[in-house]
Amino acid sequence: MSPDFSEDRLLGGRVLLRQPRQGYRAAIDPVLLAASLDPKPGQHVLDIGCGVGAAALCLLARRPDITITGIEIQPGLAELARQNAALNGVADRFQIIEGDIATLRLAERFDHAMSNPPFLPPDRGNAPPDASKALAHVEGEADLPAWTHFAATALPHRGTLTLIHRADRLTELLAALEDARFGSVVIFPLWPRTGTPAKRVLVRAAKGGKAPLVLSPGLLLHGADGGFTPAAEAILRDAAALTLG
Amino acid sequence: MSPDFSEDRLLGGRVLLRQPRQGYRAAIDPVLLAASLDPKPGQHVLDIGCGVGAAALCLLARRPDITITGIEIQPGLAELARQNAALNGVADRFQIIEGDIATLRLAERFDHAMSNPPFLPPDRGNAPPDASKALAHVEGEADLPAWTHFAATALPHRGTLTLIHRADRLTELLAALEDARFGSVVIFPLWPRTGTPAKRVLVRAAKGGKAPLVLSPGLLLHGADGGFTPAAEAILRDAAALTLG
Repeated sequence: MSPDFSEDRLLGGRVLLRQPRQGYRAAIDPVLLAASLDPKPGQHVLDIGCGVGAAALCLLARRPDITITGIEIQPGLAELARQNAALNGVADRFQIIEGDIATLRLAERFDHAMSNPPFLPPDRGNAPPDASKALAHVEGEADLPAWTHFAATALPHRGTLTLIHRADRLTELLAALEDARFGSVVIFPLWPRTGTPAKRVLVRAAKGGKAPLVLSPGLLLHGADGGFTPAAEAILRDAAALTLG
Repeated sequence: MSPDFSEDRLLGGRVLLRQPRQGYRAAIDPVLLAASLDPKPGQHVLDIGCGVGAAALCLLARRPDITITGIEIQPGLAELARQNAALNGVADRFQIIEGDIATLRLAERFDHAMSNPPFLPPDRGNAPPDASKALAHVEGEADLPAWTHFAATALPHRGTLTLIHRADRLTELLAALEDARFGSVVIFPLWPRTGTPAKRVLVRAAKGGKAPLVLSPGLLLHGADGGFTPAAEAILRDAAALTLG
C-alpha cells in the first residue's frame, strides 16, 4: 500500500476504509448518514459524491439486502472506492460511476439517495490548499441546488434524499430542497454536547412530499465526560440504525 | 366589562390582559417571544401584529426602560391593546397604530422588532369560522415575506427581528428572512417534552447580518410530570429573560 494512503476501520471494525492521508478524511459524518437510511430489502440507493465510499460501505455493512451506486467526480477517489468495495467484499453490491453531477445523466432510477456534499460554498475563498481536499470540501460548479436537482432526476415520486450538512447552511439547504420539489422534510440536529448549538444536521426529504416539516429533537453525540453518549456509541460502533422520526 | 371579554394574568400576575373570549387567545407564545428580546435601555421596539398586546405588555413589564409601538390591523384588538396599556399603567410607553402592514409606511425607525405572526398560510383552507380568529391565525394578503419586508423597512442595519412561529414553517420563514436581507439567524426550538419534535421556534435575525446561522439547543418546556420545567417556569412566571444564544 502506498504511504499516501491509510487503512482505517469504521463501524466498530466492520468497514475497512482505504483513504488518502491528505485531503478529506472520513470521520463520523458518513457513518451517521449511513445509519439514517432505511431502504426496503432489495432497494437500490444512490450515493451522490461518494468519495472513497465511507457512507456506502457502512450502509452495505448494516444492510446486506440492498445495493448502492456511487457517483464520484474525482478519479482517484472513485478508484479507491472500487478498491474499498473489493476489500470489504461488496463489489457486487457497490457500483461506482466516475462523473460530474453537473453534466451526468443516469439512465437508471433509484429508490433513495444519500449525500455528504461539500460543506463550503464556492465563494468562501478558504479552500484547503490540497486540490482533492478542496473538491471534497468546497462546492465547485455544482452548488447545493445542483445536488438536489440531480437527486430529483434519479428518484421516483416519494423517493427520499438524505443529506448530512453543516447546520449553519440550513437556509440554503431547505431552499435547495424546495427548489427541487422535495417536501416532507425532517431536520435532525446532531448536538455535539448538551447546551451547545448543532454543528451538523441530517436532513431527509421526499420527492414531491407534502407532509409538514419536522424539527426533530435529534441526537446528542457527547456526554459530560467527552466520550460518545450510549446512543451515539450504538450507531458508530455497533452499527445501530438511526431513526430520523 | 363585556361578557365577550375575559381578563387574564400573564407573567406570574405582572400583566393583566383583557382579550376576547372568542378568537385568538394569548397562551405562552407571546410570553416566550417577549422574554427573548434584549433591547438596550431607551430603545424603541416595533411589535408587528400586536393583537391585544400580550407580548408587548410582557416585555414592558420586564423592561421598564424601553418603549414599544404595536401595529394591529383589527380595530377591535387595537382598541383592547390601548385599554390593556392603560390597565397595566404603560400607556406612555406603548403606542398602538391601527393599520395594515401591506400598505402602512412608518415614518419612524425602530431599534428592534418582534412578531407573533399568523401561523397558517392563506391556502390552508381551514380558517377558523370566527373572523377575528381567522385574521389572527391565517395570513391574509400579507404573507410571511410581507412581514419580513415590513420589518426591514422599519429597522436600521443590524436591527433585529425576532419571531415566534410554527416549526413546520421553517423553510418559508428562513426564505422570507433571506428575501428581506436578514442574516445572522438564530433558530431556537421550543421542545414540548423530551424526545418530541419542536412545535414552535423562536427565530431571531439581524438586518444585513452576515454571521452563520445558529441552530440553538433551545428550551425544553415540559418535564416528565407534564408541568413546566424550572427554566420554562422562570420565564413564564418569574419574568426571566430568555437568551437565544
